[in-house]
Amino acid sequence: MTDTARLSLNLITVDHWSLREAVERCAAAGIEWVAPWRHQYEDAAAAAQIISDAGLRVSSLCRGGFFTAPGADEDNRRAVEEAAALGAPVLVLVCGPPVDRDLAAARATIAAGIERLLPYAAEHGVRLGIEPLHPMMVGERSAIVSLGEALTLARRLGAGVIVDAYHVFWDPELEPLLAGASGLIAGFHVSDWLVPTTDLLAGRGLMGDGIIDLPRIARLVDAAGYDGPIEVEVINPALAAHDDLLAVIVARF
Amino acid sequence: MTDTARLSLNLITVDHWSLREAVERCAAAGIEWVAPWRHQYEDAAAAAQIISDAGLRVSSLCRGGFFTAPGADEDNRRAVEEAAALGAPVLVLVCGPPVDRDLAAARATIAAGIERLLPYAAEHGVRLGIEPLHPMMVGERSAIVSLGEALTLARRLGAGVIVDAYHVFWDPELEPLLAGASGLIAGFHVSDWLVPTTDLLAGRGLMGDGIIDLPRIARLVDAAGYDGPIEVEVINPALAAHDDLLAVIVARF
Repeated sequence: MTDTARLSLNLITVDHWSLREAVERCAAAGIEWVAPWRHQYEDAAAAAQIISDAGLRVSSLCRGGFFTAPGADEDNRRAVEEAAALGAPVLVLVCGPPVDRDLAAARATIAAGIERLLPYAAEHGVRLGIEPLHPMMVGERSAIVSLGEALTLARRLGAGVIVDAYHVFWDPELEPLLAGASGLIAGFHVSDWLVPTTDLLAGRGLMGDGIIDLPRIARLVDAAGYDGPIEVEVINPALAAHDDLLAVIVARF
Repeated sequence: MTDTARLSLNLITVDHWSLREAVERCAAAGIEWVAPWRHQYEDAAAAAQIISDAGLRVSSLCRGGFFTAPGADEDNRRAVEEAAALGAPVLVLVCGPPVDRDLAAARATIAAGIERLLPYAAEHGVRLGIEPLHPMMVGERSAIVSLGEALTLARRLGAGVIVDAYHVFWDPELEPLLAGASGLIAGFHVSDWLVPTTDLLAGRGLMGDGIIDLPRIARLVDAAGYDGPIEVEVINPALAAHDDLLAVIVARF
């Protein structure tokens, strides 16, 4: 798809390894970037040290968001501080599900929450990346489920968007939306949609094992001017059984 | 939500019953409409007789479509004939998944297939209803996964659309799309999105058990001028355990 210098491993893909093990294995496999999740460390400064000791850089921190939950503002400020400590240029936002069937209210709460967080993120040199999730995740994870809505929010508030091929590939408006997304793309994630898909959260596939035309989406993202790291983010517990997972990921990339 | 005179039972909801049993139970429960699936009868004329003998009418036939599969044209002409034999004013189209990762090609194949079928449907007095499915069904059932695309197709070709709340409720554009759908709505289906949802096909809930704001969507569909039957279509094998399923459906409706 592109030069492996842009390959970043989103560490949820190898959540069965410790942060130290994941980072050391990435370095050995020639992977130069990682994207940790907040549950994968206790202390962000110590995690930053582990990552830089291995000669790696951080492409993003997963995740802030869940603006519809109590205490979201405080938790999101901590997430921004951790992103800054890790040297992550981007904090990925998974925006949170609706409460009481009211999608419009959830979307307004999310917009207001992002707006409140933005100045704090800017002070810390961290960009906020609104990630639209697949519409099947609307009930449990995110009321923001289309790239169009994420881009509209990002434009209005001055944030970025995360384009995850798994979440947006189905969209008939993908091409015009990405054509208009110049300057707004804060991250690009890849994995594949398996047929059949039997698990709504953890049923993702390695690139090439499913039906997403990833080269096409990569071209559209490139054409929109995004030239940063590309995160491989495959949530599937079956990956833990792979003997040489990172070599496969590098090869598929 | 509305007068039960408009309640139609989509018979996939009670696929554990024979057609005759389903129809007799509907009549006893005061349900005046049903929507059979093609696998639920061997002979459409005999099925029509069973339904009319019970004093019921047919709201639609499920389903034609799968335009990306071999032999689709012939099978769809048979589906049109069966719809006419059943007195179904509408044939619901589930359009079929992409082949070889190419969503754009699948969408073109689908449009061409509908266009070829339309004259035959018109001769038989059957309206074609394009049903956009939830985007999680793109890999196995339908490349048409947004109401916007279905409406654009319906407008261009002279077909109708089926608005199934389960498939479209997540869409941030739902309100403007329905506001512009006057004359295009050929059917309205209801069920609910459960939290959590653990099955991509058969994990639907009875109205009121999930997070869809059905009264809001019913108002939008009403405002677009649709005044035909409203099909309750709940695909969930757990429903077979309900003692008095039809009474519950009537009450929830």
